[in-house]
Amino acid sequence: MIIAFLGTAGSGKTTLTGAFGRYLEENYRVAYVNLDTGVENLPYKPDIDVRDFITVRDLMKEGYGPNGAIVESYDRLLTRVEHYINKILELEKSNDYVLIDTPGQMETFIFHEFGVKLMNNLPYPLVVYLSDPEILKRPHDYCFVRFFSLLIDLRLGATTVPALNKVDLLSEKEFERHKKYFEDIEYLTTKLKFDVSTQGLLAYKMCQVFPELSPPVRVLYLSAKTGVGFEDLETLAYEHYCTCGDLT
Amino acid sequence: MIIAFLGTAGSGKTTLTGAFGRYLEENYRVAYVNLDTGVENLPYKPDIDVRDFITVRDLMKEGYGPNGAIVESYDRLLTRVEHYINKILELEKSNDYVLIDTPGQMETFIFHEFGVKLMNNLPYPLVVYLSDPEILKRPHDYCFVRFFSLLIDLRLGATTVPALNKVDLLSEKEFERHKKYFEDIEYLTTKLKFDVSTQGLLAYKMCQVFPELSPPVRVLYLSAKTGVGFEDLETLAYEHYCTCGDLT
Repeated sequence: MIIAFLGTAGSGKTTLTGAFGRYLEENYRVAYVNLDTGVENLPYKPDIDVRDFITVRDLMKEGYGPNGAIVESYDRLLTRVEHYINKILELEKSNDYVLIDTPGQMETFIFHEFGVKLMNNLPYPLVVYLSDPEILKRPHDYCFVRFFSLLIDLRLGATTVPALNKVDLLSEKEFERHKKYFEDIEYLTTKLKFDVSTQGLLAYKMCQVFPELSPPVRVLYLSAKTGVGFEDLETLAYEHYCTCGDLT
Repeated sequence: MIIAFLGTAGSGKTTLTGAFGRYLEENYRVAYVNLDTGVENLPYKPDIDVRDFITVRDLMKEGYGPNGAIVESYDRLLTRVEHYINKILELEKSNDYVLIDTPGQMETFIFHEFGVKLMNNLPYPLVVYLSDPEILKRPHDYCFVRFFSLLIDLRLGATTVPALNKVDLLSEKEFERHKKYFEDIEYLTTKLKFDVSTQGLLAYKMCQVFPELSPPVRVLYLSAKTGVGFEDLETLAYEHYCTCGDLT
């Protein structure tokens, strides 16, 4: 079973990969893949590590600026994408779970051929798209996250589950608010109806068509610190694997 | 008139900002804003430059890794966002055009409160969302770009126009193919109908609802090298400004 963690830099992909992996290791054989050329410390021991081939730091020493170095690292990795696909397929055979920690900058995964080609060639990977609660301030932000999750699915050809990460940082009231907005699309749509901004109107129209586009995918609530949501993620991954991607 | 160029690292934001600015300078007063903390060389002279306050290189010297340094730079800039908003508003008063060159990593703009707050407080900025033709390989990739453009609009509350950049690199045949897919949504939808992958089905459903969500926004075709599309962009910006955002 292959699970890839996606999200912007700082959303907690790496920490979660380590914590969820340790949780799984109590009962399963778990392998780890690091695809981040910019990460400097990992809380798990990677079985595949792209930094053995190239790092952002090394490219900066060659004279690249930080943005250029990040892009260049994936340009170079693209020449070896078949190698990484085969290595991951091997790991999948000899383990119950393969956890993939993706690039720090999410766009170098979903906008770069390296990420797209890699994911398109893996069997039924489940993508967990991590959001930091910090970005959820207004009703239309929930609409943004739901559609972004759908776009990752479209781009990578992989079932994508939105997850709110770092829920240990939330008060009970905040947690309930996030749940309500994520799980009750009618409630969200009604809230948006009263938002007279141009954003509110666009989000309202997008929320109205959302049920036509997406099956009712569950949202996960996770914390690497407390382990909240790990059982839910395990269950969901199991269902995904057994039904080849149908999570309705 | 405020125009912001967005796109992933390598999509050509900075080069285009410089080239389009020089084109405008023949007839107008033009000001430049650099919001990229990671850029090392600029082909224009910025009137506002966030690197006067912080750079990714400096943060890496403080001990941050490349991803951490990028995020930290915008965390620190957020404390000064009002200052930058006021400076841009001043520039707007004394110039015909203010061109904003955004962060190298697009996600540090659309997922970070710095970018969201800045854009939400500027009057009718026009966002030009640059795509590299490299990412357009399959019919569903066009659907991805159109929806991504809509998500930028939703997130930043600013009219967003998708633009294909670096068109000088395309053969005539490739150029016509891109135009056909972007401009004839029925053609694209029909093509997707014959794509039996899960991505094809999702893209098909998304394209079907697209006209309900978005007014028929024009797609721009640009080249910093040849100046192709500069007149179109100028016209579009003018229409946008005069109609307060209605580009139908």
